[in-house]
Amino acid sequence: MVRPMTDALATWVDGQAANSLPLPDRGLEFGDGLYETLAVREGGLRLLDRHLARLQEGCRRLAIDAPARATLVAELRRAAAIPGAGLVKLVLTRGAGGTGYVADAVTPRRIVQAFLPRIRAPEWATQGVAVRRCRLRLAEQPALAGLKHLNRLEQVLARREWADPAIAEGLTSDVHGYVVCGTMTNVFAVYADSIVTPELARCGVAGVVRAQALDWLAEAGHRVVVRDLRDAELDAAREIFLTNAVIGAWPVRALDGRTYEPGPVCRELQQRLARAWESAEAGVCAS
Amino acid sequence: MVRPMTDALATWVDGQAANSLPLPDRGLEFGDGLYETLAVREGGLRLLDRHLARLQEGCRRLAIDAPARATLVAELRRAAAIPGAGLVKLVLTRGAGGTGYVADAVTPRRIVQAFLPRIRAPEWATQGVAVRRCRLRLAEQPALAGLKHLNRLEQVLARREWADPAIAEGLTSDVHGYVVCGTMTNVFAVYADSIVTPELARCGVAGVVRAQALDWLAEAGHRVVVRDLRDAELDAAREIFLTNAVIGAWPVRALDGRTYEPGPVCRELQQRLARAWESAEAGVCAS
Repeated sequence: MVRPMTDALATWVDGQAANSLPLPDRGLEFGDGLYETLAVREGGLRLLDRHLARLQEGCRRLAIDAPARATLVAELRRAAAIPGAGLVKLVLTRGAGGTGYVADAVTPRRIVQAFLPRIRAPEWATQGVAVRRCRLRLAEQPALAGLKHLNRLEQVLARREWADPAIAEGLTSDVHGYVVCGTMTNVFAVYADSIVTPELARCGVAGVVRAQALDWLAEAGHRVVVRDLRDAELDAAREIFLTNAVIGAWPVRALDGRTYEPGPVCRELQQRLARAWESAEAGVCAS
Repeated sequence: MVRPMTDALATWVDGQAANSLPLPDRGLEFGDGLYETLAVREGGLRLLDRHLARLQEGCRRLAIDAPARATLVAELRRAAAIPGAGLVKLVLTRGAGGTGYVADAVTPRRIVQAFLPRIRAPEWATQGVAVRRCRLRLAEQPALAGLKHLNRLEQVLARREWADPAIAEGLTSDVHGYVVCGTMTNVFAVYADSIVTPELARCGVAGVVRAQALDWLAEAGHRVVVRDLRDAELDAAREIFLTNAVIGAWPVRALDGRTYEPGPVCRELQQRLARAWESAEAGVCAS
């Protein structure tokens, strides 16, 4: 029997081997929780510190009791050590309990899963990807903006807008026509005088590679600006690239009709990520 | 051991007795699904037809394959027949499968649970409830507006704004200052010339009692108007009431500082719902 991509190599619920989620759970009932998907290589967890920091921030903003860091690290590393693991996913729900939306006396629940790596065309990282614009407009909710929470129906609907496997990603904008992010990636646009990535104060997910890239590119002397980015401004970009925790960085070679050249800034980021894998820079690849 | 309110009397997953959800499931991963909570009395399911119609509409808009009606009805009635059942909850997820947001070749999953009735102060239905306004503003997403989907973090956050058990509900507005609904209820405001309930084309959940009330009140000769309702307009209402599938209808006796009298329109709706329970009107109480 062929294993679907989504079948986990191993699953733990609150640290115990499991293949199912005890019911009730507010993660299923309301999407009341957060998640992180980490890239794994040779047992190392890329950007572990940044994933844990985003999770911590999500717990603070949603008022979910954050598990002890040591517990999370131990459980994530155990999953990363599973032979063949290419991804480790952590779902943290508010847990079971409460009555309706009232959530008193609940204990958060951890679901940790190890997965095979996702199969992607290798030339997507080298020659770039074809991208489209999605019709769906992201709703503005500052209370949830930036978080990797479990309410992802907008991304599910946006991703349903195309089936062509040659299209790697779809860009989503808000109602004002500002580009926010891809369905699963963050967006960077390179101009003569600056590198721009969208502000994520009203919607969107603040990716861990985005955060790392903002630091690295600034360290490298680039002028990096986080601001609202009009969709039309993408036409003038000399280079566009996409980032997420699993793919790292992809150059954009086509956006709807328009073509772009994979550019030096994306290459620089890809090389920096690759060096981090090799050298296991603290926090970047914690093995 | 005391059973928490949230523990189910019985749970079935895809028709089989279960106490957990097989993983992976897109309902947990993305809130990729819908739910319905039905009131039960003596084995009867109140507003069954309206619940099933809303679920069907949700399946159409989210492109989830709707289960056969006969299957759903049989499973809901089996749950309603559990001794002590006061609520039956149906969660329909897109199921397991797909890769990331891509959801091809997935089979929806049904989770049906029977619960004890919720304990509410009986005077809330007779003397009315105290209600507050929530600070959280609902995001506008026409693609999801009106649906009872599993992305409910906004309601979770809004409900966290108060802990006083004397406050029965919180009203949520959109960014324009229009009242949308309560965290778990729909809102009606009665004026000299009309009964108004908010338009739900941009956000909010279109409740089944709301839908039934719109029909009944119009049949009874009232002028019922569905439109955007400014928060300030609530001050001028001679009567305000809240509806949902479990509580039926609650008069509002206080909204923040302001007080109201339980009024005749809410009483009329409560009596009509009570008669429906007694007489098991087709579709209203399908036993």
